[in-house]
Amino acid sequence: MITASICTIGDEILIGQIVDTNSSNISRKLGEIGIKVTRMVSIADDHDEIITSLSRELDSNDIVISTGGLGPTKDDITKPALAELFGCKAWKTDQEQLKIVYDILHSRGLDVLDINLRQAEVPECCEVILNHNGTAPIMVFERPDGHRLYSLPGVPHEALGALDEVLADIKKHFNTESIYHKTLMVYGFAESALSKFIEPWEDALPKDVHLAYLPNTATGIRLRLSVYGGQREKDAEKVEKLLIGLREILGDNIYAEKDCALQEVIGDLLRGSGKTLSAAESCTGGMISHLLTTVPGSSEYYLGSVISYAIPVKEKVLGVPSETISANGVVSSEVAAAMAEGVRRVTGSTYSVSTTGLAGPGGDERNPEGTVWIAVSGPHGTITKRFQYHNDRKRNIERFSASALDFVRRYILAD
Amino acid sequence: MITASICTIGDEILIGQIVDTNSSNISRKLGEIGIKVTRMVSIADDHDEIITSLSRELDSNDIVISTGGLGPTKDDITKPALAELFGCKAWKTDQEQLKIVYDILHSRGLDVLDINLRQAEVPECCEVILNHNGTAPIMVFERPDGHRLYSLPGVPHEALGALDEVLADIKKHFNTESIYHKTLMVYGFAESALSKFIEPWEDALPKDVHLAYLPNTATGIRLRLSVYGGQREKDAEKVEKLLIGLREILGDNIYAEKDCALQEVIGDLLRGSGKTLSAAESCTGGMISHLLTTVPGSSEYYLGSVISYAIPVKEKVLGVPSETISANGVVSSEVAAAMAEGVRRVTGSTYSVSTTGLAGPGGDERNPEGTVWIAVSGPHGTITKRFQYHNDRKRNIERFSASALDFVRRYILAD
Repeated sequence: MITASICTIGDEILIGQIVDTNSSNISRKLGEIGIKVTRMVSIADDHDEIITSLSRELDSNDIVISTGGLGPTKDDITKPALAELFGCKAWKTDQEQLKIVYDILHSRGLDVLDINLRQAEVPECCEVILNHNGTAPIMVFERPDGHRLYSLPGVPHEALGALDEVLADIKKHFNTESIYHKTLMVYGFAESALSKFIEPWEDALPKDVHLAYLPNTATGIRLRLSVYGGQREKDAEKVEKLLIGLREILGDNIYAEKDCALQEVIGDLLRGSGKTLSAAESCTGGMISHLLTTVPGSSEYYLGSVISYAIPVKEKVLGVPSETISANGVVSSEVAAAMAEGVRRVTGSTYSVSTTGLAGPGGDERNPEGTVWIAVSGPHGTITKRFQYHNDRKRNIERFSASALDFVRRYILAD
Repeated sequence: MITASICTIGDEILIGQIVDTNSSNISRKLGEIGIKVTRMVSIADDHDEIITSLSRELDSNDIVISTGGLGPTKDDITKPALAELFGCKAWKTDQEQLKIVYDILHSRGLDVLDINLRQAEVPECCEVILNHNGTAPIMVFERPDGHRLYSLPGVPHEALGALDEVLADIKKHFNTESIYHKTLMVYGFAESALSKFIEPWEDALPKDVHLAYLPNTATGIRLRLSVYGGQREKDAEKVEKLLIGLREILGDNIYAEKDCALQEVIGDLLRGSGKTLSAAESCTGGMISHLLTTVPGSSEYYLGSVISYAIPVKEKVLGVPSETISANGVVSSEVAAAMAEGVRRVTGSTYSVSTTGLAGPGGDERNPEGTVWIAVSGPHGTITKRFQYHNDRKRNIERFSASALDFVRRYILAD
């Protein structure tokens, strides 16, 4: 099996100022063409450390993908370190990348500075893959033992934009095979409860099928089945047979059979149906709407929302009667229902979903921090449900939003 | 200087199914007490790999923090690997952690299963730091050379919840000193333009002061000055003197002098002022509202929003005249202004901000993908501005939202 190591370079990663998202994106893509990522390493913008670490990773892997340290500013030092590592003395300017540098800066109305021009200079011993989304080209180096290093920019959309060409180059140079992963998305269980619930099924899994639980606040639990058999079609068939039993146990708690988010499933349910959705959000503050509109083409079925953070907005814009609020409190089934019905009336949508709760910090005896009432309204009436989570504002907003999306998904499914 | 390595354990990281946020959070905290993180490594749920990698990191660092692989399910294997690495044969049950296991499961209305109880079992040679947010305790191991390993759960809020106690333990065992970092947040420049703009100032920096540029779609550019002097007060004084010149050059393009987000700065400007804010969002789909409400206590100044994704919602809820839309198009200065004024009228807020644009995919000749009109309305009238970004829906939503927050920040500042 061909193996790879991903090395991210940059002090900003080591001091925790940015979260490295490149590694996971690159790894996923490598997995799709059957390359196993054995390690991910983050190292400092330090000449010696770059040389030592990349060299070590190249010793034990066929492929090393590095990102970062290629910017125009003075703290980026990967390029000279790579030249030294591969013993290059001479430099060349890549004319095609130079043209891209000019195009990018002109399209942004920026002057072309010397430091921009230097971006197109690379060690003579490397091959260049063009970076169409930025100024620093992708550099490809090969060692005498055939192990290859791909140096990508650190800016995520530049690293990802060049990835297809990097993968094509990898396929040309290595004999890639297959790892088969199948992911199911499950909502409505704690990890240990799900594990207990499916234990007999899990215990009967063949030895070469590996099951992993990946709980996540925003998406529920990902169940991932992996087969390192190397024969993609046979592995897929084997997993497909195993899944029949799991589907019987979990039913519509499984919301998707691929890695995706609740809002994408809602999009799939509504797209082309002529049915529409709106939201009235209080404690979730716009996150449900944001998630719904991350889906390209969501304007086909998503009409809009009212974020009624303040009580007068609930009354005036959504028409929640002030008596409903004074009689039941803002965090109540009745207010959630009135909000959902209000936004459905205002926008004219087929379905609507609402939230009213306490993301924190703070709460009271009746409604401790982490309480939320969620309502869904539609052609068959309005239903509400109370959820109780914990003491973490950010996570509560995520959990409330995910629970609301799952609640509206189940309503539409049943409809 | 005391050094540390952070090791994250889990196949889900290596296959790219989750993004590792623990490393950056832990690293930031270590930096605050003067510990330099030299490497971050992600490795597989593999017995031998765990032992080999942790052992190697312990050889070259005083401290190793590992996260992950401690869950109740069958794919988590860190605990036996650690027992072997540190030569522990016997196991003990931590009674205090066991009590927490019972409390957590009962509070969530879940049955206590055997696999939950085993969470409180640890190798006898380790010290335990309680995990109050989850079932797996933190385990602390020490080698004969004094190097210490802290094994934390992988679930982010559990890892972070225990971090203060881990840091206290580190301070007790190591003689920590100081690294001084100062971060400035800058909005409104491309990286290379900013670099050119402040070049004379940068070139005059003393040798022991390191400057880094960290561009980010959602926050603009972080400028980070680092001094590895070891004398915190002296270093702070030195940096403070250097900043006087930079402030003159950049003015209110610097929106904060600490690592924070635009919405937090807006919160600081509005909190206690009696002034309020609302938003009317089209192409940003709720993200501005979501960002505003990530700030604890935002209900003091943020009243609410209308997400008018569909045209009828713009007309009906925000009162945008249909002639304004037909005469100028939805993506126009006029519609942005009418939306901002509409939501200000509906919510009664002091200020409002609006967006109308094309996040993509798709656009037309007049308004290519990545075009947005932003308006801010307030006591001194309504102003609008057009921004042109690129071809990436997710990034455009982030950029539009950040530009809108920066635009309203400047309006409030000038007010």
